[in-house]
Amino acid sequence: MNAPLPSHLLPDIAQRETPQALLDALKARFGDRCSIALVVREQHGRDESSFAAPPPSAVVFAESTLDVSDAVKLASQYSVPVIPFGVGTSLEGHLLAVQGGISIDLGRMNKVLHINNDDLTVTVQPGVTRKQLNEEVKSTGLFFPIDPGADATLGGMCATRASGTNAVRYGTMRENVLALEVVTASGEIIRTGTRAKKSSAGYDLTRLMVGSEGTLGVITEVTVRLYPLPEAISAAVCSFPSIEAAVCSTIEVIQMGVPIARVELIDHNTVRMVNVHSKLNLREEPMLLMEFHGSPAGVKEQAELVQEIASGHGGNAFEWASTPEERTRLWTARHNAFFAAIQSKPGCKAISTDTCVPISRLADCLLESVSEADASGIPYFLVGHVGDGNFHFGYLIDPNSQAERETAEALNHKLVSRALALEGTCTGEHGVGLHKMDFLLSEAGDGAVNMMRTIKRALDPKNIMNPGKIFSL
Amino acid sequence: MNAPLPSHLLPDIAQRETPQALLDALKARFGDRCSIALVVREQHGRDESSFAAPPPSAVVFAESTLDVSDAVKLASQYSVPVIPFGVGTSLEGHLLAVQGGISIDLGRMNKVLHINNDDLTVTVQPGVTRKQLNEEVKSTGLFFPIDPGADATLGGMCATRASGTNAVRYGTMRENVLALEVVTASGEIIRTGTRAKKSSAGYDLTRLMVGSEGTLGVITEVTVRLYPLPEAISAAVCSFPSIEAAVCSTIEVIQMGVPIARVELIDHNTVRMVNVHSKLNLREEPMLLMEFHGSPAGVKEQAELVQEIASGHGGNAFEWASTPEERTRLWTARHNAFFAAIQSKPGCKAISTDTCVPISRLADCLLESVSEADASGIPYFLVGHVGDGNFHFGYLIDPNSQAERETAEALNHKLVSRALALEGTCTGEHGVGLHKMDFLLSEAGDGAVNMMRTIKRALDPKNIMNPGKIFSL
Repeated sequence: MNAPLPSHLLPDIAQRETPQALLDALKARFGDRCSIALVVREQHGRDESSFAAPPPSAVVFAESTLDVSDAVKLASQYSVPVIPFGVGTSLEGHLLAVQGGISIDLGRMNKVLHINNDDLTVTVQPGVTRKQLNEEVKSTGLFFPIDPGADATLGGMCATRASGTNAVRYGTMRENVLALEVVTASGEIIRTGTRAKKSSAGYDLTRLMVGSEGTLGVITEVTVRLYPLPEAISAAVCSFPSIEAAVCSTIEVIQMGVPIARVELIDHNTVRMVNVHSKLNLREEPMLLMEFHGSPAGVKEQAELVQEIASGHGGNAFEWASTPEERTRLWTARHNAFFAAIQSKPGCKAISTDTCVPISRLADCLLESVSEADASGIPYFLVGHVGDGNFHFGYLIDPNSQAERETAEALNHKLVSRALALEGTCTGEHGVGLHKMDFLLSEAGDGAVNMMRTIKRALDPKNIMNPGKIFSL
Repeated sequence: MNAPLPSHLLPDIAQRETPQALLDALKARFGDRCSIALVVREQHGRDESSFAAPPPSAVVFAESTLDVSDAVKLASQYSVPVIPFGVGTSLEGHLLAVQGGISIDLGRMNKVLHINNDDLTVTVQPGVTRKQLNEEVKSTGLFFPIDPGADATLGGMCATRASGTNAVRYGTMRENVLALEVVTASGEIIRTGTRAKKSSAGYDLTRLMVGSEGTLGVITEVTVRLYPLPEAISAAVCSFPSIEAAVCSTIEVIQMGVPIARVELIDHNTVRMVNVHSKLNLREEPMLLMEFHGSPAGVKEQAELVQEIASGHGGNAFEWASTPEERTRLWTARHNAFFAAIQSKPGCKAISTDTCVPISRLADCLLESVSEADASGIPYFLVGHVGDGNFHFGYLIDPNSQAERETAEALNHKLVSRALALEGTCTGEHGVGLHKMDFLLSEAGDGAVNMMRTIKRALDPKNIMNPGKIFSL
């Protein structure tokens, strides 16, 4: 059972019921591609977060930009909210219809439109998922590195400014989106950016849309950068006597400027859960999982340097892999961490944190939060994109236990306060959604959040684009 | 003599005279730090562009964020324009007081505030120049790579989204600014971003301000990323039988994913001008100047691969350098190109282009434009950050010759049209300013430019922040 939505997040529901006239108009325009079946609406009114909210009143399955534009124009005519939907993997309540409205499902807009291998760019519809994209560009020798874990859509990844395991080397969606097509709140279709690698041509509307969580428009086309598949890839896992030792190794690797492609932390709790779940015999100690990309000689050089640094911090039990199969085996613990954790406490929900701090503050931020979590008695898993200073606790709570929820929220609150005091952010990659609105205010301050509100009001005067997310209006 | 400003750029000057009451209030608040001397005003009312415009009515020399805030508040009270000034190296008329108003000189806000070497970040006041910054961080073993040629201020480089020779490897200001302090149009002081390397916390106000050319606020503090000084640096120059051969080599280097740090093109015209200016004997052929950063082995590997690629395109006369002195000597041609060109035609002004196209389109874009320039009879220089698809023609015109100016503008117009047709941008790094307002409209379209206007009107309802730049309102 999901928790009821806190009442302060539900200001306008009563005022924003979807009029029958809009439903009729959507039916007339979209026929079977507009559904009001409860099961369809419920499926589109939830995400991986743990809040309950009323589902949208209808779901439109868009097949083209024109479909999106027409749906938004109709919604605008009746001042009814619009919530874009990809595959539903967001974590912060982005998809919940907290003020009612309709969902626009972009899953059928899933074509890879243009692969420009000579320019290392690709243009896709928003419903293309990252795994699909990598499958479709495979034969070109290029790949798209952003890997947030879930097989999210490119549109959704833009909307939340996603990143993940490869960001330490390749950057986030912020650095990798070149251009967008967007349907604005009035239903107008605009383009932002070009395929040029850089530009100083006016306001950076691309970057404004990336991370706007559906509150400024619906993304209907995405152009991203691709990268040549590395000539050589090498992976390694290494165990450490303490989280501190693993984190200090990471800090040193980053400060030395080693172009490591991935460096992920898993704590000993999580290793234990994975051992049970996947019947493995990994050392139940904190572990770093690393990947190196480059020429054979370059990869060897990086790997030797990192091994030396890790050994200096007590790192041991190095295992290396260079074939894809061996790499997959080595990374099992990381790939299965979430499911192993969830299954370790039947019926539980994970409350996930997402702080990110400057690399030198990572040990301070992480170690104190581990102590607090241990003291609370709440089981948790801990994984981290530590090369970026970003990590996630997943507090495993019984969703029926108000006490556990409150304990987890209190832990998260302390963690965020600590991260902000250390000049970090409350969310490295998940977005604000419903859950972090108060944290955003603490982080950015009234002035900056008011500037966001001003932009929102100007670009969406009827407040129909995914309203009630990021900030209250 | 600079050309008179085209009349369509001067809509409101008459309406926006600076009232004596504002001048009195500024004098009362700033004393000697507010100047109305003509020579001071004229110095702040021009930049490297070739337009003439009335100078600002007064110049305030700010020494703190509070100074900036108070100056903006006074200007806002009287609805008088505010134009931020760094060191005056912009190229597109950004500093011209086309609608009157006051200039805020940020040159005295030139302190490096916090060097966080463990996090590879530094926070500076906006008047710090890039050379000063690199001097001040030298002892930490870190450096700031963005190099637009001129010794611009960090505030100015943010405002125009500058890049330059190292961007092919290290990115532009877009990728390297982490956080800002900004004085808004109402005089409020806000902060955008944190020192965390990545964040999904709300709208990306940092990226909105970067490239906004002073039209949304005055940048009063900048936090940027630093990089470890490479263990090894190697530089090379190589001559080619044609521009096409040089460009095709570059395209292949980029497509192979070689992490080259710099790759600059100079055409044979420009080499000839440099030979005359600097009494050198360089081969008067198109030339690539390259730089490789990394470990000694990595640099060697990159250099060998690039030499092989270049040789395949007829590249010859390779010269290599690895000490700083030798590198400086090799790069003489690039460093002196602008001055050598200007001195090749006494009394001339350079009209500079700034298109940037996807790398696969670079040869098409460049070669046709070279043919057109050759056919026109106007002397020019040609340099390019070709690894990014960005290059600059400098058409050398007699500023008193209307015919030459028109010829140069026509060449630029054709070049921009070509770049846009090839999915590129009218400005890779100089910004829009006054000169490229029409080009921006062609590039981004009415919809996107109207979105920019809407944001501008919402954040600056009195239209006082550097009005008349980027777009007309």
